[in-house]
Amino acid sequence: MNGDEEEARARAGLTAVARPGDLWLAEALSEHGAAQVWSALVRGEPPPGGKGQTPPRWMAWARGAAGVDIDGLLADSAQAGVRFVAPGDPEWPGRLDTLPTGRDCYGLWVRGHGDLRHLCLRSVAIVGARAASPYGEHVARELAYGLAERSFSVVSGGAYGIDGAAHRSALLTGRTVAVLAGGLDVDYPRGHAGLFAQVARNGALVSERPIGRSPRAPDFLIRNRLIAALTPGTVVVEAGRRSGALNTATHANELHRILMAVPGPVTSATSVGCHRLLREGRACCVTGVEDVIEQVVPLGQSTEFTGPVAVHADLAPETARILAVVDEPGVGTAEVAQRSGEGLERVMRSLGMLAAAGLVERCVDGWRLPSRRGRKRA
Amino acid sequence: MNGDEEEARARAGLTAVARPGDLWLAEALSEHGAAQVWSALVRGEPPPGGKGQTPPRWMAWARGAAGVDIDGLLADSAQAGVRFVAPGDPEWPGRLDTLPTGRDCYGLWVRGHGDLRHLCLRSVAIVGARAASPYGEHVARELAYGLAERSFSVVSGGAYGIDGAAHRSALLTGRTVAVLAGGLDVDYPRGHAGLFAQVARNGALVSERPIGRSPRAPDFLIRNRLIAALTPGTVVVEAGRRSGALNTATHANELHRILMAVPGPVTSATSVGCHRLLREGRACCVTGVEDVIEQVVPLGQSTEFTGPVAVHADLAPETARILAVVDEPGVGTAEVAQRSGEGLERVMRSLGMLAAAGLVERCVDGWRLPSRRGRKRA
Repeated sequence: MNGDEEEARARAGLTAVARPGDLWLAEALSEHGAAQVWSALVRGEPPPGGKGQTPPRWMAWARGAAGVDIDGLLADSAQAGVRFVAPGDPEWPGRLDTLPTGRDCYGLWVRGHGDLRHLCLRSVAIVGARAASPYGEHVARELAYGLAERSFSVVSGGAYGIDGAAHRSALLTGRTVAVLAGGLDVDYPRGHAGLFAQVARNGALVSERPIGRSPRAPDFLIRNRLIAALTPGTVVVEAGRRSGALNTATHANELHRILMAVPGPVTSATSVGCHRLLREGRACCVTGVEDVIEQVVPLGQSTEFTGPVAVHADLAPETARILAVVDEPGVGTAEVAQRSGEGLERVMRSLGMLAAAGLVERCVDGWRLPSRRGRKRA
Repeated sequence: MNGDEEEARARAGLTAVARPGDLWLAEALSEHGAAQVWSALVRGEPPPGGKGQTPPRWMAWARGAAGVDIDGLLADSAQAGVRFVAPGDPEWPGRLDTLPTGRDCYGLWVRGHGDLRHLCLRSVAIVGARAASPYGEHVARELAYGLAERSFSVVSGGAYGIDGAAHRSALLTGRTVAVLAGGLDVDYPRGHAGLFAQVARNGALVSERPIGRSPRAPDFLIRNRLIAALTPGTVVVEAGRRSGALNTATHANELHRILMAVPGPVTSATSVGCHRLLREGRACCVTGVEDVIEQVVPLGQSTEFTGPVAVHADLAPETARILAVVDEPGVGTAEVAQRSGEGLERVMRSLGMLAAAGLVERCVDGWRLPSRRGRKRA
């Protein structure tokens, strides 16, 4: 087990004992590393804290850590099609590195065939009220369909209403990422179990909480920062006066992401939140997919998708050899190493890079080439 | 005839021969005065131009001036209940003095019992598409009703659609000003003849064109700058992609007035213009009367109407004597002078001030106390 793997395992353990967003833990991790923090907790000792101070909540974490079997957790997760992605992993979405300390993410549980980093590279978040109006759901569908058609992944929260409409519509032409507040085997809300299965086939489900955890109230608010953080821009389609989507909007503002709001009839209670964002100058007004793309694609850059960031011709010979071995779905990393004749370390790095470039995809039992649509583009 | 009266008569004549918005004429007026310009034109001579240059279009104006009988025009106007208000007149709306040279207004024809200056002091313009949707008309009605109820005059363009809805609704609780593109006896559009009669009874009709003139295409665009200029802020309720209301919006921006837009469904063609104004950051988003009042009432100032700007107790003794004489509707200026024992000059100034303060009102045959509602407030 190398150092990175040890760090990742410790972080996986931490997701089971501490909610994200603890400034003490974040500082301890960044100064001493997860492995050292975790081993102290497992021994029932105060972990080394940031700036030489012991995190005040360490005893609760230690009690939790005593009951965590990381190997078992990882094995059960794999059984449920769930993998753990830690900072530095090739699948880790780079945008999360911009989260301020105290809001950072210890690691992500991911379920689905899509490579999360690749899915988030060109993405837009579409969020909104659960109690959406037919108008709002219509607009969410139109936006999600159009964005997916133009190779943007649609990121949302998997809830009823706007979120569900956006995920479903994105699946018709492209990919989608559902960021959930609870464990990825929990299917919350239950009525979206079928949708989540589809998202896993064509995109990814993401959570900061380990399997088996039902989401609780604070989890939704903490989760919202991830929706904002994973994407360059968030569109609020409909939001009532106290909609949770406004919390996501606040995160987008604070994380300096682009915040967009869709206007609606001033007579509609489900547009009140959107109009407030517009009136306060916190969001820009978007009325369709072209407006959204204009906002999220940097000035001077083509709004057309120009294919993955690397193409076969540019690949180093070893990387090309590794890619050539992924010839049927479900090739495991060890098998790729063996058949390509490259070392495991290099194979892992190369597969990560190939995944980020959209040339291979993770699947539950290993690696595969991207679906037809993705391949044609490359 | 004193100098001011001569100036005003010359300006009345000019409205019959030149459209507003001629930079040459504006400069000539400001440097040499209207009387001198007019007498040259009547003699068929080039008028003295601004910066020593002869206005290039002077011959067309001279041809027009030769056919204008100012006395006849004023008499016919009075017959139609129309008076002429020139810059400096007590009824002249002070905001028009902020129009940049070349866009300035030579004078206004006014029809109605309201004092124009007083009507515009606390006012908001509500404009929008002629081909309005039921949604747009509903919002226009709600805004106009609420603003009128809070003692704001509603200024609009008298057209079908949003304008008409705003005027009608304002009349239910308060006052309204219709700024027309043609002569005030023309009733354009014809279907609004009844509405215009009501506006005259409770507010004012305004035009830069003399009686008898049917409005032509450019008149509408020139008129739009007046709607923006007369008010501190303009609300665009609905506007299609090429709606004339967007022209009014541009004037409001250029004149540094507050521009507001009402959002609507993104699926509605009649909200496209409003959304563009919002997206481009040219207008702020307003969803109801409270939002509008928050925008147009300066920070720190009460949004409640605190009555006219002067009250009886503050009046100079002569002014109080003059006010006391306006005891029945239709007292003429000369009669007020005779009965109060004050000079005609002072009576005219005092009545203008009293009108601006909302303590007296013009009516077709002279002066009267304001309607019950107004009096109660004072």
